[in-house]
Amino acid sequence: MSRKIKEVQDSIVVMTQLVMPNDTNPLNNLMGGNLMRWMDVAAAICSGKHCEEYVVTASVDHVSFERAIALGEVVKLKAYVTRAFSTSVEVFVEVFSSSMRGGPSVKCNHAYFTFVAIDQENHKPVPIPDLNPVSSEEKKRYEGAQRRREVRLILAGRIEAKDATEVKAYFAKQ
Amino acid sequence: MSRKIKEVQDSIVVMTQLVMPNDTNPLNNLMGGNLMRWMDVAAAICSGKHCEEYVVTASVDHVSFERAIALGEVVKLKAYVTRAFSTSVEVFVEVFSSSMRGGPSVKCNHAYFTFVAIDQENHKPVPIPDLNPVSSEEKKRYEGAQRRREVRLILAGRIEAKDATEVKAYFAKQ
Amino acid sequence: MSRKIKEVQDSIVVMTQLVMPNDTNPLNNLMGGNLMRWMDVAAAICSGKHCEEYVVTASVDHVSFERAIALGEVVKLKAYVTRAFSTSVEVFVEVFSSSMRGGPSVKCNHAYFTFVAIDQENHKPVPIPDLNPVSSEEKKRYEGAQRRREVRLILAGRIEAKDATEVKAYFAKQ
Amino acid sequence: MSRKIKEVQDSIVVMTQLVMPNDTNPLNNLMGGNLMRWMDVAAAICSGKHCEEYVVTASVDHVSFERAIALGEVVKLKAYVTRAFSTSVEVFVEVFSSSMRGGPSVKCNHAYFTFVAIDQENHKPVPIPDLNPVSSEEKKRYEGAQRRREVRLILAGRIEAKDATEVKAYFAKQ
Amino acid sequence: MSRKIKEVQDSIVVMTQLVMPNDTNPLNNLMGGNLMRWMDVAAAICSGKHCEEYVVTASVDHVSFERAIALGEVVKLKAYVTRAFSTSVEVFVEVFSSSMRGGPSVKCNHAYFTFVAIDQENHKPVPIPDLNPVSSEEKKRYEGAQRRREVRLILAGRIEAKDATEVKAYFAKQ
Amino acid sequence: MSRKIKEVQDSIVVMTQLVMPNDTNPLNNLMGGNLMRWMDVAAAICSGKHCEEYVVTASVDHVSFERAIALGEVVKLKAYVTRAFSTSVEVFVEVFSSSMRGGPSVKCNHAYFTFVAIDQENHKPVPIPDLNPVSSEEKKRYEGAQRRREVRLILAGRIEAKDATEVKAYFAKQ
Repeated sequence: MSRKIKEVQDSIVVMTQLVMPNDTNPLNNLMGGNLMRWMDVAAAICSGKHCEEYVVTASVDHVSFERAIALGEVVKLKAYVTRAFSTSVEVFVEVFSSSMRGGPSVKCNHAYFTFVAIDQENHKPVPIPDLNPVSSEEKKRYEGAQRRREVRLILAGRIEAKDATEVKAYFAKQ
Repeated sequence: MSRKIKEVQDSIVVMTQLVMPNDTNPLNNLMGGNLMRWMDVAAAICSGKHCEEYVVTASVDHVSFERAIALGEVVKLKAYVTRAFSTSVEVFVEVFSSSMRGGPSVKCNHAYFTFVAIDQENHKPVPIPDLNPVSSEEKKRYEGAQRRREVRLILAGRIEAKDATEVKAYFAKQ
Repeated sequence: MSRKIKEVQDSIVVMTQLVMPNDTNPLNNLMGGNLMRWMDVAAAICSGKHCEEYVVTASVDHVSFERAIALGEVVKLKAYVTRAFSTSVEVFVEVFSSSMRGGPSVKCNHAYFTFVAIDQENHKPVPIPDLNPVSSEEKKRYEGAQRRREVRLILAGRIEAKDATEVKAYFAKQ
Repeated sequence: MSRKIKEVQDSIVVMTQLVMPNDTNPLNNLMGGNLMRWMDVAAAICSGKHCEEYVVTASVDHVSFERAIALGEVVKLKAYVTRAFSTSVEVFVEVFSSSMRGGPSVKCNHAYFTFVAIDQENHKPVPIPDLNPVSSEEKKRYEGAQRRREVRLILAGRIEAKDATEVKAYFAKQ
Repeated sequence: MSRKIKEVQDSIVVMTQLVMPNDTNPLNNLMGGNLMRWMDVAAAICSGKHCEEYVVTASVDHVSFERAIALGEVVKLKAYVTRAFSTSVEVFVEVFSSSMRGGPSVKCNHAYFTFVAIDQENHKPVPIPDLNPVSSEEKKRYEGAQRRREVRLILAGRIEAKDATEVKAYFAKQ
Repeated sequence: MSRKIKEVQDSIVVMTQLVMPNDTNPLNNLMGGNLMRWMDVAAAICSGKHCEEYVVTASVDHVSFERAIALGEVVKLKAYVTRAFSTSVEVFVEVFSSSMRGGPSVKCNHAYFTFVAIDQENHKPVPIPDLNPVSSEEKKRYEGAQRRREVRLILAGRIEAKDATEVKAYFAKQ
């Protein structure tokens, strides 16, 4: 049976959250951990849509929190699949915030999540549809996904740094 | 000073929620009240975007719950302004649900909310931008808003049924 | 088998809530959606008591929010059945608020909810006990329930406006 | 200025809660700590009503959990003042539960809470209205309050057991 | 089969909580009921560890709230078993608080909880391991547990005051 | 004024959480985002203790989720400072889980967080105490912190890969 092929647009997820008092620290800013929780949910829903299966978070790449998001601000999260591997997907999540009184939306941060599709019966990874990148932006993220995956495997201790061909090549060139 | 004019697209809000155990009743379906709370938040964010002010819920029109939404389903809410009055807006909220394992999104219900823009200093209603409907769908909702407003004023006891010109005319024709 | 008959007093529910920070908007007032959620829970418990079955929210009639309820206020909800149909009940919910430091309780708003009794096995509507209104106030709400039901059926698109005998008659008289 | 005198009925509080999944332990029963939290909120609202001031929990007497309360059950809490001291009140909270599908309400447990009225400005205890017990039941609880208070003072290490006249007398008679 | 013997150190539990806005009263202090809920969870985890079974709260002894804990403070709870009876354990919970900006940790209050080990199948009490107190502090709490248990049995109405040998002797000596 | 020097033990934080229904996905396992939120809170409290100031999350390094943590399990988080920079600290968080019925605690995952100390008045970074690593384990984490920091600066786009001396050297050796 040939593998089903889907596009980025098929599983894009937009989530909107209002920063409530219990989401903030004593400086009245959204706590980093709460933002990560929202990013994880948005990314999980996006993965489930692409994979057509239940999914579990396998990893989150480095996340930087560059801008404080204040109490009462509106946070918009946009999640989309960048590449499908055999039983897992990489999802890119972007975070924007704006005042509750409207005005421009400002990019706050982003992160790459990896999710594994899981069979509900025996809790084992299952094959998923492939992804066909269409726009140049989608293609660029698709290419980068291979290198990010190699870094993850090093970090998780599953491959050795000497075998990370793409990453080694990248640093040799610098 | 002439009144600012905005379009429906300027303040559209998409919100995605995952139905969690605490959102459900003993039959494992989303409780109606929780859905109304999500609808209210989506509509409030949409209103704030249009009005460029803090807003408070003034009323919610009749809501029907036609389809049960199950635990673990993904709920997508879409809110957009239908018409701006002097200090208030009418917002239409549509609700769709789908499985967490993807598949088609099904329309579940909808409702019309009214929000009043409030000045943060003295908590009084303030003037807001006008709305210019563009598509034929937007124009249709814009027209209907006047009739729905008349019904609300009757229901709130602010005008008498005999003065509800549009509603009376509507029933006389039936 | 003859149908069981119950009274309003048999299923009256009183619920008290304290407005906490996470229940409020940036103006420090209770968000409309949170109040609707509490009203729905109070009405659901009341319906379950009358029906002696699990119930699901079928609809909520127009709700007006006339008075702002502030952070730290005590909200008291009172729910009672107004009329029982074959498999559904109409419940009236009244909302009062007062300061946490005591003082008079002020009526804030009210709404009519409709709940359907559901069989836990096959999730189908089931017959419920009838209601016998006793006081003149109970009888008045009982009478009005038929007209409100007709309006709901029009709004849900289940009957046509021309067949809404009571509503047509009402507007013809104005 | 003579001290204001109030009655038990002036500040009685009824609270209704539905046992949700997150309130339960892995045996699907309401966790004791959650019930204590609800009891504390009901008692706090009742105290605030009597004292006409903000109040803080000073102590909770021994609580026994005799009956398990299951997921989906309806919990009804009833709180009323038993006695007013100069700046504090003793509040009695009774807990009843019933099925969400109606049926009889069963007494589950009870507890005595003590609250101190606090001035919002400088956070010091303030004088409160006195309580006039009316029914024989109210008078009985009023009398017992003095003995329970003595026990609390011993337990808090504020008086020595030898000075607990009423308690000593009670055990000497056994 | 001889009974398994464990030590206090085998089941000690440390829990840390941050006081968030929704945990506080209008005076911005942690509500007593929320602290009791945290104490109950810490004590339940500690009991489960000792008993190697699911546990349910049977009772909580008198709790005094001597110090207000403010919004944003860090609360540290320490729970350890003081004595094991045949199917129940007594757990001592101590509460400390400190500023989120560090500084000394201050003792706030403490309480004794009793938990019963429950068989998951038929929800009946089951035998549990015994406790061997080691340090002098542990031995002191172990001794006191018998007297506290007698008081609980009187309070729960399971034994009569005249049969509370240890308690009677204690007051006779004062 | 010479810089204050503190040790790892001075700010170690232990947090215990019970996995509740609302923390889990439809496979009944703890959602990754919820675990990240708990890790963030534990790390924030630890940072605040070391820095003696309010702190905000600056970044989280790669996190792998190797083991599923089930509903009802007990999660223990241990956070400690690995190195102090001028206005920021790196915190290492380890996660362990065990059954609620006791038994061995198993390592689940870990992550490195970076927090910046913030002045409450003008929300600017402020100098913090230094860290003196004592044990060989503490010294090893202290050394690695410099390399991890360089990686973070590359990832955040603040330095170029060619200037990441330690990282380049590391890959050149492979």
